[in-house]
Amino acid sequence: MNKVHNFSAGPAILPQSAIDASIQALQNFGGTGLSLIEVSHRGKEFEAVVAEACNLVKEILNLSADYEVIFLQGGASLQFDMIPMNFLTPGKTAAYVNTGVWASRAIKEAKMFGEVNVLASSEDKNFAYIPKDYSIPADAAYYHCTSNNTIYGTEMFSFPETNVPMICDMSSDIFSRPFDASKFDMIYAGAQKNMGPAGTTLVIIKKSLLEKANAKVPTMLNYKIHVENGSMYNTPSVFAIFVCMHTLRWIKEIGLTAMEARNKAKADLLYAEIDRNSLFTGTVAVEDRSRMNVNFVLTNPAHEEPFLKFCASRNLSGLKGHRSVGGLRASLYNALELESVQALVDAMQTYESQNA
Amino acid sequence: MNKVHNFSAGPAILPQSAIDASIQALQNFGGTGLSLIEVSHRGKEFEAVVAEACNLVKEILNLSADYEVIFLQGGASLQFDMIPMNFLTPGKTAAYVNTGVWASRAIKEAKMFGEVNVLASSEDKNFAYIPKDYSIPADAAYYHCTSNNTIYGTEMFSFPETNVPMICDMSSDIFSRPFDASKFDMIYAGAQKNMGPAGTTLVIIKKSLLEKANAKVPTMLNYKIHVENGSMYNTPSVFAIFVCMHTLRWIKEIGLTAMEARNKAKADLLYAEIDRNSLFTGTVAVEDRSRMNVNFVLTNPAHEEPFLKFCASRNLSGLKGHRSVGGLRASLYNALELESVQALVDAMQTYESQNA
Repeated sequence: MNKVHNFSAGPAILPQSAIDASIQALQNFGGTGLSLIEVSHRGKEFEAVVAEACNLVKEILNLSADYEVIFLQGGASLQFDMIPMNFLTPGKTAAYVNTGVWASRAIKEAKMFGEVNVLASSEDKNFAYIPKDYSIPADAAYYHCTSNNTIYGTEMFSFPETNVPMICDMSSDIFSRPFDASKFDMIYAGAQKNMGPAGTTLVIIKKSLLEKANAKVPTMLNYKIHVENGSMYNTPSVFAIFVCMHTLRWIKEIGLTAMEARNKAKADLLYAEIDRNSLFTGTVAVEDRSRMNVNFVLTNPAHEEPFLKFCASRNLSGLKGHRSVGGLRASLYNALELESVQALVDAMQTYESQNA
Repeated sequence: MNKVHNFSAGPAILPQSAIDASIQALQNFGGTGLSLIEVSHRGKEFEAVVAEACNLVKEILNLSADYEVIFLQGGASLQFDMIPMNFLTPGKTAAYVNTGVWASRAIKEAKMFGEVNVLASSEDKNFAYIPKDYSIPADAAYYHCTSNNTIYGTEMFSFPETNVPMICDMSSDIFSRPFDASKFDMIYAGAQKNMGPAGTTLVIIKKSLLEKANAKVPTMLNYKIHVENGSMYNTPSVFAIFVCMHTLRWIKEIGLTAMEARNKAKADLLYAEIDRNSLFTGTVAVEDRSRMNVNFVLTNPAHEEPFLKFCASRNLSGLKGHRSVGGLRASLYNALELESVQALVDAMQTYESQNA
């Protein structure tokens, strides 16, 4: 079978080394003679996996000792509830920026627990840009943003300066480039884009934010409990954390600076073709174009279905846009190779020569 | 390497067919040319997995159309919160039976959301029996019990008759024997004992109970949302559900009647040896002895560590009792073969001949 080029928006392409390691561990995990999915999460072999995964996150992001790293379940979506439950303290208002479906869901959940101030929104242009012209009230409980918007293909390349605790959903661009993690009080990410398979969520949290948390939070939704128990309050998502650990090893080996160069080269190649090729049009404000998810449309919508079929015939997979926005979307997560983007660009050029 | 006999309490032994299928799918899932952990959860290949897993649960338990089946995240522990959030309606009291650590945790969480009536507890004897002499108030919001108590090795072989909605945590004995599912309004189970790997939770819920749910429940903690979205409100735990689907195929092939005979033969063999062998003593009321988790101690505690080492030398793994109760525990979940129990019994007899 020819190689399939995987542009899926998530769950998404992972490094082959992580997949190979998980296959090996399903056969015999860490010399136990048992499969990874049959061993106690409290055995020393798996405890070493959780410890290494957490340490790799700290190393890669250069986190100080002020930060805790845990792996939870429930995806970013459960964080939308846990954040206000823990940090939207009575009498305070939480500040959110609305950059798309996921940010909207985070806002909707926060409103169930207290006052929410939506500082800015790009809904007026179907979230095709990142709002920048707003200020964060100094007395906000916290400020929440979404660094990359998978559905629309926008990405925040800079973050506001504020003394308010900054919380960021980095589900779809974490580990794709260097950034100053010390600006943030909490960072979270569903694993299934740049870090591993579906089934676990990375939470990075500053100790000073934990100290401000509400006192009465249900146990499984209480960050302090999970931190105190080292991600082991209850049985964690063993397999998913194992694959994350191996993906993090691969990320560390490349390093975030080289990863950014790699991701920029892929995105530049594709955006240049979108801008050059008369059959295609980008949908996002140029300065906010995501390097992770490239959204575009066929200038003539009648070409969309035929072009998707043409791509499928060339083993280019996962290019259909999200059902809420249509068009095309090529996700270029860390593990995708430049050669896959080149294959897509070749398809766009061949399709142009046959149809322009 | 010689075969390791896996008596782990969970995550635990799984059928080899499910492990083999997951290895194959990590290489190439459903003919996609991609790994199971790299494909969209909304692709037709994975949607078919979720649908088959839910249908297998319905078939195996002979569920009527009155029941919904979903796969969530967060383990049984998150259910301890979701149940009162959804079903402990204002002005009502929830009725719980306390049969151990997990039941106690369920009770503790429910108390955060409303009134709780603990109908009975076996804490007076360190949970070494199942309380039976209690009645369920007719106006309770629901009745909650734990069918098998992994830490202590007790199991409920019969359930009370009541018109109150019955909710049961069957994490560690679901699919181990036939039972009348129509008596229950909700059944839930963390996958990592008899059903699959850690990372997903089965919830079976009667439509009539869903209709009684509280109106304002955070989205990710709202059963109705997950039912309406067919376990796909957010990205589900793809890999774990896949392994569950294959384990459920294996369970269906054997059937619950044969599975019970198989589990009874294993438990009978081990309990008979515990009762015969002067070096060992069972710790649980005979009528409440679990077929899933067999708890026992060395009559002379000085023998405990040497016996565990003796077992390890014979590739008998996972026999140390839970840290909260000590002693020994042999978990005999569905996928454990009689030959593994025989190997343990042989070890007990050999140890006796050398040390009695």
